[in-house]
Amino acid sequence: MKTMQETFNALEFTDAALTLLDQRVLPTRLEYIVCRDYREVEFAIRDMIVRGAPAIGATAAYGYYLAACEFSAAADRSAFMTRLKEASLFLEQSRPTAVNLRWALRRMQTVADAAVKQPMDELLSQLKREADAVKQEDIDTNRAISRIGNDIVPDHATILTHCNTGALATAGWGTALGVIKEAVRSGKEIFVYADETRPRLQGARLTAWELMQAEIPSKLISDSAAATLIRDGKIDCVILGGDRVAANGDVCNKIGTFMLSVVCKAYGVPFYSVVPVTTIDFEIETGDDIPIEERDAQEVTHVEGVRIAPEGMAVYNPAFDVTPHQNITGIITEAGIIRPPFKEHIQKIRKAYGI
Amino acid sequence: MKTMQETFNALEFTDAALTLLDQRVLPTRLEYIVCRDYREVEFAIRDMIVRGAPAIGATAAYGYYLAACEFSAAADRSAFMTRLKEASLFLEQSRPTAVNLRWALRRMQTVADAAVKQPMDELLSQLKREADAVKQEDIDTNRAISRIGNDIVPDHATILTHCNTGALATAGWGTALGVIKEAVRSGKEIFVYADETRPRLQGARLTAWELMQAEIPSKLISDSAAATLIRDGKIDCVILGGDRVAANGDVCNKIGTFMLSVVCKAYGVPFYSVVPVTTIDFEIETGDDIPIEERDAQEVTHVEGVRIAPEGMAVYNPAFDVTPHQNITGIITEAGIIRPPFKEHIQKIRKAYGI
Repeated sequence: MKTMQETFNALEFTDAALTLLDQRVLPTRLEYIVCRDYREVEFAIRDMIVRGAPAIGATAAYGYYLAACEFSAAADRSAFMTRLKEASLFLEQSRPTAVNLRWALRRMQTVADAAVKQPMDELLSQLKREADAVKQEDIDTNRAISRIGNDIVPDHATILTHCNTGALATAGWGTALGVIKEAVRSGKEIFVYADETRPRLQGARLTAWELMQAEIPSKLISDSAAATLIRDGKIDCVILGGDRVAANGDVCNKIGTFMLSVVCKAYGVPFYSVVPVTTIDFEIETGDDIPIEERDAQEVTHVEGVRIAPEGMAVYNPAFDVTPHQNITGIITEAGIIRPPFKEHIQKIRKAYGI
Repeated sequence: MKTMQETFNALEFTDAALTLLDQRVLPTRLEYIVCRDYREVEFAIRDMIVRGAPAIGATAAYGYYLAACEFSAAADRSAFMTRLKEASLFLEQSRPTAVNLRWALRRMQTVADAAVKQPMDELLSQLKREADAVKQEDIDTNRAISRIGNDIVPDHATILTHCNTGALATAGWGTALGVIKEAVRSGKEIFVYADETRPRLQGARLTAWELMQAEIPSKLISDSAAATLIRDGKIDCVILGGDRVAANGDVCNKIGTFMLSVVCKAYGVPFYSVVPVTTIDFEIETGDDIPIEERDAQEVTHVEGVRIAPEGMAVYNPAFDVTPHQNITGIITEAGIIRPPFKEHIQKIRKAYGI
């Protein structure tokens, strides 16, 4: 067993403020942003100071708590609850695709509703505890997922991953990158190819950085270089995250995921998505119903503020795509590895979790 | 019929020098580089001041002529020919994948060999005429290819293209982009999605610029956004270039081409490569034998000189990939559209051209 200690803390709440490692400027600069109210938290999610489905869930929970603190001097409890609800909706619309955001905010709302008649101090303290729990449970869940996921990783495996799913994308440790780190921790020799993940380059900027921090042998590639590696048998499995999973097992994830899945299916390479159960949206039947966020043209026309396309060029910039469950070998969760038939297995998890 | 006039001249030989539009700094700067000897020509190809298989063929031909001018004062004709051969080999190794480079240099060598006993003035003048012919024939060929290719473009088509295959990639007019321009010229309503084409962003920098110059409605996308467009029926056909075609119809082209071909095959979307016959390497049986140029890590870790990946991160950066003929609907050439069975049809062309 190797020890793998996180060398950074990307998301921490202390002294009535949420401190976030600014993921927009990594890896060239290690800077922290302090959010002192929920508006700053909303901006941090929208502008992707923090990103990754589980990380923005925990961030939003703290945003909700900060809103409650701000409104605690409201004239009466009903006014307080109304303003809190407004703040929650404001936080929820910061990113449309990840379901964890909505889930975390609902969880906070449930606590607020239940404690609505409590003294304000008590209500606030319960909300703080709940936000802490959202964060801590995510870390615990990721550890559990990683142990389960490690089962499918052969020793001496070469793994391809996409986007960033490590400690930066979660409250800590990571999902897909968590599985990879757990495989290394358990003594396996692992080599990782990291897709750079255009347009926002989370692979080049964040995953490469986390892989280097964890000292895992790896190489960075352009997204379109993956296909030949897959065809030529250089990749033992693709392991990546997920932003929303539909009830039939379709996985919505960072743009580029679907393309990888098609190549994996064509050449018989195992393809896994790694998500906490909170990423499953049981209310959405298929991936077709998941809203796909279209982001600013500038993400494609500029890199680090430098223009790379002619002025006036139109852009189509979807942030996510949907991988049909037919292309997926398994979805690795803390409730086990979901395999075909996905719909039935996801239904079982829903029942077991009483969701 | 619309008129479509080139608004720029990317490759021009005047006053004993080759003037090249510097494709490294487009579209933000319109700058020209003047090559006065073959060493400068070799650098221009290697550093991708000029790129695109047909364009580097014509460029190399002028490089050969410049070398001949430089060596014309040699002690005797045998010394002259030896030095010319060395210069030719030096030019040939500037980029390993495109076959046009080698083809153009051999053509120049054949002229030099045939005129070896002529007075030096006459020999030089024949070489100049040959280089001019390499350039002009490429333009004429591209026009012919475009007319043939236009047959497969439906009216109101939405076409996806990859990398740059326009007037910048050739001696003029273009191959795949030539077909697209011809379709527009012939009155068809065409919409183009242009892959940005990481790592060197020829799509974002060059194709987007040429599309805007030609006023063709279009959008720029990240390479990995193409797959969903293809699956969702938003793309009528993929039309792109080729850097070397093997005798069995396998096409070596810019990295990312193979990934597109897999998705097109999976979802039944026509996939065409557009190349002059000179791009076919009849001596290479399959794509497996085509050398794939691996370029500098910095192309992936930096964009326009700005670092986007952590220092010390290893990189795998193949410039090309091979698309197996099984994934290709047709190869559009001036000798007609080559369709399956590719090997037999390519053999026929070889015979017809006496190659």
